Amino acid sequence: MAGVNEGTVPMLEVWRGGLLECSHLGHAVICDAKGVVESWGNPRAVIFPRSSAKMIQALPLLETGAAAARGLTDAHLAFACASHQGAHLHVDMAERWIADLGLAETDLRCGSHEPYDGTERDRLIRANDRPCQLHNNCSGKHSGFLTVTQHLKAGPEYVEIDHPLQKAIRAATEEVTGESIAGWGVDGCSAPNFAMSVGGLARAMAQYAIARDGHGARESAMHRLTRAMAAHPELVAGEGRACTELMRAMQGRVALKGGAEGVYVAIVPENGLGIALKIVDGGSRGAEAAIAALLARIGVLDATHPAAVKRMSSTQRNWRGLETGCLKMPPGFPG
Amino acid sequence: MAGVNEGTVPMLEVWRGGLLECSHLGHAVICDAKGVVESWGNPRAVIFPRSSAKMIQALPLLETGAAAARGLTDAHLAFACASHQGAHLHVDMAERWIADLGLAETDLRCGSHEPYDGTERDRLIRANDRPCQLHNNCSGKHSGFLTVTQHLKAGPEYVEIDHPLQKAIRAATEEVTGESIAGWGVDGCSAPNFAMSVGGLARAMAQYAIARDGHGARESAMHRLTRAMAAHPELVAGEGRACTELMRAMQGRVALKGGAEGVYVAIVPENGLGIALKIVDGGSRGAEAAIAALLARIGVLDATHPAAVKRMSSTQRNWRGLETGCLKMPPGFPG
Repeated sequence: MAGVNEGTVPMLEVWRGGLLECSHLGHAVICDAKGVVESWGNPRAVIFPRSSAKMIQALPLLETGAAAARGLTDAHLAFACASHQGAHLHVDMAERWIADLGLAETDLRCGSHEPYDGTERDRLIRANDRPCQLHNNCSGKHSGFLTVTQHLKAGPEYVEIDHPLQKAIRAATEEVTGESIAGWGVDGCSAPNFAMSVGGLARAMAQYAIARDGHGARESAMHRLTRAMAAHPELVAGEGRACTELMRAMQGRVALKGGAEGVYVAIVPENGLGIALKIVDGGSRGAEAAIAALLARIGVLDATHPAAVKRMSSTQRNWRGLETGCLKMPPGFPG
Repeated sequence: MAGVNEGTVPMLEVWRGGLLECSHLGHAVICDAKGVVESWGNPRAVIFPRSSAKMIQALPLLETGAAAARGLTDAHLAFACASHQGAHLHVDMAERWIADLGLAETDLRCGSHEPYDGTERDRLIRANDRPCQLHNNCSGKHSGFLTVTQHLKAGPEYVEIDHPLQKAIRAATEEVTGESIAGWGVDGCSAPNFAMSVGGLARAMAQYAIARDGHGARESAMHRLTRAMAAHPELVAGEGRACTELMRAMQGRVALKGGAEGVYVAIVPENGLGIALKIVDGGSRGAEAAIAALLARIGVLDATHPAAVKRMSSTQRNWRGLETGCLKMPPGFPG
């Protein structure tokens, strides 16, 4: 294991007036069933996966039988893996899910923040209303957490590190990454987030990529979560967001997920590949460019698709629409 | 001259759960009247100063006699150097300034964006109104630009590179930095932004720090702009912002200015020092921490002041107020 700042390589350049203005450094790993296929930076760098771990955190939802008992749909499962933007669509889905459980918004433990969705934000402001926990970008994950908690008849403080749900997530994390956790921290939504190497996260994503339906609870869960996410890009993030736009560009072939502080992962079943990356400065600009570039490299994303160009090589414009510069992939990445 | 990504050093660490989650790299230089006093990273790294050049861009306002002819106050001059947050205070000031010139909002060339100020943003949304150019964080600078343009009887397209105002700014830039410009780009507000080394920017700030009133037009202008900024922290940025809070913490002794994409400068008359820094990933989190740490190092900012702690070493909390980690200055910076 290594510090996140050790052995990074450039992953995005930001140019202005013909000069390099900014540069984002990071680590990236592509794995298949057998291990590392290709890497940039240090595969042993320790990171917090943040929200890119949501498909791991959703495993107990299927493996405990809670999802089946509640008759959850693929839309629910995609939403459980989402960092959504609190649009009406998302808030409504969280509200109905929690009501179906016979629970209330106050049973959530994710906290409240202003929705990223402009329409919903403006609606709240005009109504002199405040965002609630349903608006939290993790409210889908927490709806899933509540579903498992209820199914297990466990206590209400489901984000505590010794809660049965979090113990199950920790065990699943170690199994799919093939590593002991490197530590843990509290995430923005109050759930524990387990630290791992970038390589371990890529290995986990490769397990999802090769998982077969009907080959045991773990493989079936990984198989279904991957397809649910790829089939519902609008639930996983929202309009204009990288996850949603890039998944749409790949037409259901790939499941993608970003995480706070510059993390991105991809699950590519047709190639049996998993990808994980971390931009060490935490910049989502760099992470979105790097995942698009890696998806193009392995042949599942057309680098000339507008959703790819926007992140990797677009002309940058200012408030008056004047060209100010451009994004560029650095020499050597991804090569 | 060197690329901005060459020879950087760590300037801020972001920790979570006892592990390093993110790191920001950059360059920083402290200069006095004679040159570089101390540096971190590469003083020859080429950067765009962005809004940290506003006190250079304001020199023609004084040196052409435009400010005197119009009877501009220190508040006007501070506002000409501002990246304000479009609070009522700022919008009102821009509106009155432009009206005093007999001009209209449409004479501005900065473009419109949503104000950063929450109260003004919410007011616009509730009124079903749209932000105008007065809300642009650079509307003070552009009010100054219009004042010079009118005084010079120059054409209305004052952001064009061959406009007399921009030619004057380019000449002033080369004079105060002691360098030929390294290139130029178009800024977010459409004005040209002249590239320079980090060391050149620090040298320029040192010229401001040692400038004496009554010693020629240039020195008088630099002297007055520095005092105007230091006396009006609320105009230079706004409530909650680093520039405003840190300047208040230093009680008028220092003029501070941030720039987009991780730039920060300080002018410290009592020590005759100028500081410039650039975080290479463009992160303001890193730039604000680094400038606070350097101001503490040279003895003008109390590192235990809440405004300093907030940027350099604060506990980080999530939406529910739970502790998630902390900010830390890296070993060796600033030493």
